[in-house]
Amino acid sequence: MERRKFIKGLGLGSLVLGTTVAGLPKASARSRHRWKMVTTWPKNFPGLGTGANNLAKLVKEMSGGRLRIKVYGANELVPPFEVFDAVSRGTAEMGHGAAYYWKGKSEAAQFFSTVPFGMTAQEMNGWLYYGGGLKLWRELYADFGLVPAPAGNTGVQMGGWFNKEINSLQDMMGLKMRIPGLGGEVLKRLGGTPVNLPGGELFTALQTGAIDATEWVGPYNDLAFGLYKAAKYYYYPGFHEPGTTLEALINKEAFDALPSDLQAILLNACKIVNQDMLAEYTARNPSALQDLLTKHHVDLRVYPQDVLQRLRTLSAEVVAEIAEKDAFAKEIYTSYRKFLQQAKGWSRISELAYLQARDGG
Amino acid sequence: MERRKFIKGLGLGSLVLGTTVAGLPKASARSRHRWKMVTTWPKNFPGLGTGANNLAKLVKEMSGGRLRIKVYGANELVPPFEVFDAVSRGTAEMGHGAAYYWKGKSEAAQFFSTVPFGMTAQEMNGWLYYGGGLKLWRELYADFGLVPAPAGNTGVQMGGWFNKEINSLQDMMGLKMRIPGLGGEVLKRLGGTPVNLPGGELFTALQTGAIDATEWVGPYNDLAFGLYKAAKYYYYPGFHEPGTTLEALINKEAFDALPSDLQAILLNACKIVNQDMLAEYTARNPSALQDLLTKHHVDLRVYPQDVLQRLRTLSAEVVAEIAEKDAFAKEIYTSYRKFLQQAKGWSRISELAYLQARDGG
Repeated sequence: MERRKFIKGLGLGSLVLGTTVAGLPKASARSRHRWKMVTTWPKNFPGLGTGANNLAKLVKEMSGGRLRIKVYGANELVPPFEVFDAVSRGTAEMGHGAAYYWKGKSEAAQFFSTVPFGMTAQEMNGWLYYGGGLKLWRELYADFGLVPAPAGNTGVQMGGWFNKEINSLQDMMGLKMRIPGLGGEVLKRLGGTPVNLPGGELFTALQTGAIDATEWVGPYNDLAFGLYKAAKYYYYPGFHEPGTTLEALINKEAFDALPSDLQAILLNACKIVNQDMLAEYTARNPSALQDLLTKHHVDLRVYPQDVLQRLRTLSAEVVAEIAEKDAFAKEIYTSYRKFLQQAKGWSRISELAYLQARDGG
Repeated sequence: MERRKFIKGLGLGSLVLGTTVAGLPKASARSRHRWKMVTTWPKNFPGLGTGANNLAKLVKEMSGGRLRIKVYGANELVPPFEVFDAVSRGTAEMGHGAAYYWKGKSEAAQFFSTVPFGMTAQEMNGWLYYGGGLKLWRELYADFGLVPAPAGNTGVQMGGWFNKEINSLQDMMGLKMRIPGLGGEVLKRLGGTPVNLPGGELFTALQTGAIDATEWVGPYNDLAFGLYKAAKYYYYPGFHEPGTTLEALINKEAFDALPSDLQAILLNACKIVNQDMLAEYTARNPSALQDLLTKHHVDLRVYPQDVLQRLRTLSAEVVAEIAEKDAFAKEIYTSYRKFLQQAKGWSRISELAYLQARDGG
């Protein structure tokens, strides 16, 4: 840690002790910092919002209170989709969101959250931490003065809530469905009409028939939203979000100003939340699903084979087109695709073969 | 943190500064600690041993060097299967291993590593962190003066290396296979002969025909061991180890003596390694598998349906018998089983359905 950077990093409450006393930890080890974290989630939103809270709590505990982060829900400090810019310009030192929200900055950002028929949560972690993914992500965000870090995962999501039965490709034609991003583009190519609505409007839109269907997250979040009261069928699997990585965004200047142990604590707290959120969804989704099926008599349906097959083909097309945007997008796509191709071969004989054997299939 | 405990916790290199200077962090925040970690793995063994190294490195970085842990490979300080006792009596402050090695202490310990046809890595994390599993684990180890923490996962393992084709249940009769623990018990009930051998002896035992088959870990570790040179067939899935959790063992007295931020750093470093090791296996297994198949022309085989079905039935019996050992074993089994039952319902429509759809199945 250079002294210049250290001095810059000292907060108002910092104490600068003599660094010449032999054996004393360096003064930077006692600097204190107060940070703000803006998020794209409603304050305390289960899983996503509580994951952001968890991150702040972990940093406080591990730093012995030397780095304290105050978490702001969507719209408390900035609107949800201004989180990226707010952290980039330093309005807040950090943020919590998902990379696919920033496709306006770079289409390739979407690979760092999830893409249709892409990697599962476990594969994403393999790619990000050991397959070069995180390195590319850091390069992409460096231009915006940001340090990204994986900080949560929802696991495989659900296909969504439908008021129209899907028995064939024909039934997808004209389907008016709330499904943003690449999943929406896939639906469009299938002849459907993707719409985008904020989470808070889904229930009414479904109930009034303004939309035929909506995707959201999975049983844990969907149960809390009461979506089962407004739709008849609950379709799986969520081909469009097979393991969505959430992200922490850190202002690079603020990060560089931290002493090295606080930098390590901060990035490692993100790593912990990355696992912790997935563990929470994995524990909460099963009982929420059971409640939906037994208490609320939800009609659980699987997408028909031919629909899934067509969705898969179209997804591959839509995802490949990102590579055409620019050279760096192509590099990210190539890295993602290569890892996924190999990972598929392994997942087929490990996770998939095991789950089939356990299931008796 | 009580002062008594704090004083006790100070290592030789500690500095006790006045605690009366207003605004200074408490003296405990500057105490320095030197620990030893004994492990059940050969030093630097890929994945498992490097995971232990990773743990020590993370603690050093996040603590700014205030807690330093020296890692010892198997037999460097104590033999591999004495790690539990060594940490329990304080010979080393911590250890790294797997809970199923300690079934001599309690049969129920096996639930905290893996059991045949049990939870996947993702489900284990759900149970341990959000389903009451870790709480039970802590209770079980408290009697031995130990604090356990999940600290690594191999993911789904492979069935193993065979020099005999398995086409029916008949072929399992008389099969001499290196498969320890509950998997071995299942094989025995199927008419096979389970044997136990240390990893270093597998190659020769296979090559000389002393055994017909052996399980080990998965492509990444198996390739490094060169097992493909001594066996013809590589079977999957690893029904006996579907997501093996590795563990950190911490001497409770040593843990209690740490200031609270170092306690938080230590336990959180375990959490990070828990995710990191799985990510490493997920990234390394696919390319190792490809090497085995394309460079070494390994004959990849799936266990036949009827064999898997019988293995599943026998596994359920063997696992249920652990509950009969004592009241606490029953409590652990009940918690595990209840979580697994619910998790299965969710995994079926999320992970399994998605991987099938992606695979075109």
